[in-house]
Amino acid sequence: METSHLIWTEEKRKEKYRTGLMSLFDIECRSPEGKIRTFSVIECPDWVNVIPVLEGPEGRQFLMVHQWRYGSAELSVEFPGGILEEGETPEEGAGRELQEETAFMAGSLIKLGSVRPNPAIMSNTVHFYLAENLIPLSGQNLDEDEFVDVLRINEKEVIANMGKPPYIHSLSAAALMFFLTYK
Amino acid sequence: METSHLIWTEEKRKEKYRTGLMSLFDIECRSPEGKIRTFSVIECPDWVNVIPVLEGPEGRQFLMVHQWRYGSAELSVEFPGGILEEGETPEEGAGRELQEETAFMAGSLIKLGSVRPNPAIMSNTVHFYLAENLIPLSGQNLDEDEFVDVLRINEKEVIANMGKPPYIHSLSAAALMFFLTYK
Repeated sequence: METSHLIWTEEKRKEKYRTGLMSLFDIECRSPEGKIRTFSVIECPDWVNVIPVLEGPEGRQFLMVHQWRYGSAELSVEFPGGILEEGETPEEGAGRELQEETAFMAGSLIKLGSVRPNPAIMSNTVHFYLAENLIPLSGQNLDEDEFVDVLRINEKEVIANMGKPPYIHSLSAAALMFFLTYK
Repeated sequence: METSHLIWTEEKRKEKYRTGLMSLFDIECRSPEGKIRTFSVIECPDWVNVIPVLEGPEGRQFLMVHQWRYGSAELSVEFPGGILEEGETPEEGAGRELQEETAFMAGSLIKLGSVRPNPAIMSNTVHFYLAENLIPLSGQNLDEDEFVDVLRINEKEVIANMGKPPYIHSLSAAALMFFLTYK
């Protein structure tokens, strides 16, 4: 497929604002027709997202986390996940976030896929994992300001209610797509 | 379910940086234990995302758009969509974005669901629609700096390849989840 008529090239990048978790840059890009335009993009580390599955007498259940989300100022029930630490592989990060947030260790971690959370304005990648053969540990290991409840919810309930509060996180919906097409 | 031990309350909000498409705020929040912490959140308008379906002799196909994404600096094949204009309903925005980007009008638009693109740091909502009974129009209606190819791709190919370049957009993966669980 011929794509040169779609491709922009970056000429310059300048940091304009920085928070603890992200940097905002102005980038000057040259359009396919040669014009220079400026866009704002956000750089931040990659993320991981984990679907932890428990098989039990009540059927298949997901382990999910219930927590406050400041961005949209509401409670969210979502798959555990977070920001990759420096030097960590996505699989290591997936295992660590699962343990910290849910107090379960993954007996097996299977990569389901990766996407860009928002390629229009962000540079980073989110990696999705399926966690099975879960082993309970002694307790959560949360940051000082993290308040997270762990819930066991039937697979069918999550699938039927995704998009309705409290199942509001787009990355949990994307994770579910990978789960549904993997199984 | 008792949730008061999870809920933060916002005390103050101050704009720190603004681009053409978003505003970045520092918000001071009071934790469930009463401590004050500051977080960065982004405000921007709501988005729409449309799955346009064509039924033809080659089976079911999706109309998708092929375009450059500055954030991750790569080509992306994704479902059409964009930013809601002021005063526009999500359904009106979905119809408009579909027409502008693909030059097809939706004979019917069905709401599939809504999620928060990133409730951790963003306040907005993305609404997903299924567009059927598509009617071809005379041409795209793109902004001056938009370069977008329209592709017809078999449903099965998109499902099998989501997460592999050029199918890299998390919101297309989330849209596909809603499509798969709607059908």
